[in-house]
Amino acid sequence: MLRAGVDLGGTKIQAVITDEHSKVWGTYRCFTPQEGGPADVCDAMADAVKQAMADGALSYDDLIGLGIGAPGQIDLDAGTVSNAGNLPNWMVTYPLSREMTARLRVPTYLGNDVQVAVNAEVSLGAGRPYNSMLGVFCGTGVGGGVVINKELWIGRGAAGEIGHICVQTKGGAPCTCGRTGCMEAYAGRAAMEIQAREWFAEGRPTELFDIMADKGRERLASGVWYKASKHKDKMAKKLIKRAVWALGSGIGSAVNILDVEAVVIGGGLGLRLGQPFVDKIEKAMMPHLIKPAKPPAVLLAELGDLGGALGAGLLVPTPAAAS
Amino acid sequence: MLRAGVDLGGTKIQAVITDEHSKVWGTYRCFTPQEGGPADVCDAMADAVKQAMADGALSYDDLIGLGIGAPGQIDLDAGTVSNAGNLPNWMVTYPLSREMTARLRVPTYLGNDVQVAVNAEVSLGAGRPYNSMLGVFCGTGVGGGVVINKELWIGRGAAGEIGHICVQTKGGAPCTCGRTGCMEAYAGRAAMEIQAREWFAEGRPTELFDIMADKGRERLASGVWYKASKHKDKMAKKLIKRAVWALGSGIGSAVNILDVEAVVIGGGLGLRLGQPFVDKIEKAMMPHLIKPAKPPAVLLAELGDLGGALGAGLLVPTPAAAS
Repeated sequence: MLRAGVDLGGTKIQAVITDEHSKVWGTYRCFTPQEGGPADVCDAMADAVKQAMADGALSYDDLIGLGIGAPGQIDLDAGTVSNAGNLPNWMVTYPLSREMTARLRVPTYLGNDVQVAVNAEVSLGAGRPYNSMLGVFCGTGVGGGVVINKELWIGRGAAGEIGHICVQTKGGAPCTCGRTGCMEAYAGRAAMEIQAREWFAEGRPTELFDIMADKGRERLASGVWYKASKHKDKMAKKLIKRAVWALGSGIGSAVNILDVEAVVIGGGLGLRLGQPFVDKIEKAMMPHLIKPAKPPAVLLAELGDLGGALGAGLLVPTPAAAS
Repeated sequence: MLRAGVDLGGTKIQAVITDEHSKVWGTYRCFTPQEGGPADVCDAMADAVKQAMADGALSYDDLIGLGIGAPGQIDLDAGTVSNAGNLPNWMVTYPLSREMTARLRVPTYLGNDVQVAVNAEVSLGAGRPYNSMLGVFCGTGVGGGVVINKELWIGRGAAGEIGHICVQTKGGAPCTCGRTGCMEAYAGRAAMEIQAREWFAEGRPTELFDIMADKGRERLASGVWYKASKHKDKMAKKLIKRAVWALGSGIGSAVNILDVEAVVIGGGLGLRLGQPFVDKIEKAMMPHLIKPAKPPAVLLAELGDLGGALGAGLLVPTPAAAS
């Protein structure tokens, strides 16, 4: 029995093929089409699944379903995705489930990209030993999720917006959401880049944009931040320090409300900056805890770049084991 | 079948006698002894229960148990309470369950004072129609609780410290917990009083302390804040506005993480300032919501001053109904 999981991001598509124990049998990763429309993105996803099947020399007879972790607004009943601003011409409501099932001839299951990644960490990754967990994923923005009694708590569908904890109500930095003072305004890559460009335009020195150009990128990707901080670039270090400061406060607040057993740090930027980043966040969180004698474990996400796709694979129900 | 519930506060003891449907049959309220020790407090609680029984002309044969909502550190297994700083000479570990059972000859059940009050609101009060709820109780401090799937979520025992969401990480007001920028630093009566005394000492005009003296109080009790704001006292209005500002931000952050269906505002100050206070908090919360199209209901606690005692009564297990 095999299931396919696809993490559909604005930059990359990651596909993974797993068995019922979530053991990985094949993977494939490609860039997300930046032009065209939803149908082109579906073609690319179908191709990624086929390449991942080929990677493991697997038989289609064993494939029982496809799970997709998608951005935008998902209608689970209708199997549609709309308002996916990071994907080309995808503000429309598009029948993603139907289109993928037509391409791969297996049932398709949809989930929110961040929620499936949090679910993967608690089911298969760093959160496995815990009953309650807070996932904090630093990428372009800061997303996350709350796990209560081993289950992702989604509220009325919108829970987990941890990036929009307000850590500085008065005089806070502008957030890409239009508000000010959100954790994401300090710890989301998009907001960090806006601040860096502003300072750079003012003539403050930094290697960030040289490194970006060297890597042939147009954005300050996670690897750019990593390399600049390794080079002891002052601006990069200052902005990462600011991110840690905001994450410490916001995560501390969330822990004071929820008293979770563990906090798992992931996302593109989180994974790239790795354990030293996690250690700094833990240190910054401690002074905010009202019960510092019993802090939660603060851990790096264990599943790395595959987390989202593995979590998407978990959307596919496995048949009850034959007794 | 009758059960007794006692809300043990630093200022007052509230007792209530209810039946298995939480219908109220008798109540009694008295001041908490400010001198002596735990045994004197127990005597006062036992007397309050007896007076509440007398209030309803009830028979002791029907009383099946006593629940107490207590401050301090509670050991449920041992039936003890320690570190209750608001009670006279109660930093020791005191066998509260055993002592009350000896006095009233019924089993005694203990619970955290704030948690039982939140539980009362979701079981019997404003939170009844909802599956998920955030309780925010503004009194001396700001306490609260998170209700998920109709159950109070206590984490590893310390969840619900909503007063210590940090709303202003840099340059925040000093909190009575020793940190700065906590919601309680703006919206807890103790912190508000410290700020008012500081401003008054600097010569800023206010009626607050005259009203306090007129009422024969030594502290700025909730009624003092209420009366001063009715008199359009500038300092009182300013500090209440600041409290609303902090509550709007902190509650907004909590809603962004948890997407609860309802927020219930209670506590001594919350109840006294009432619906206009709740309306202002709701208005201050809205700009912080990442999904403003689907805000939670923001409601005044329905059980008023009896909430804590009713919640304490719920700690007493009811015998399975005879079929």
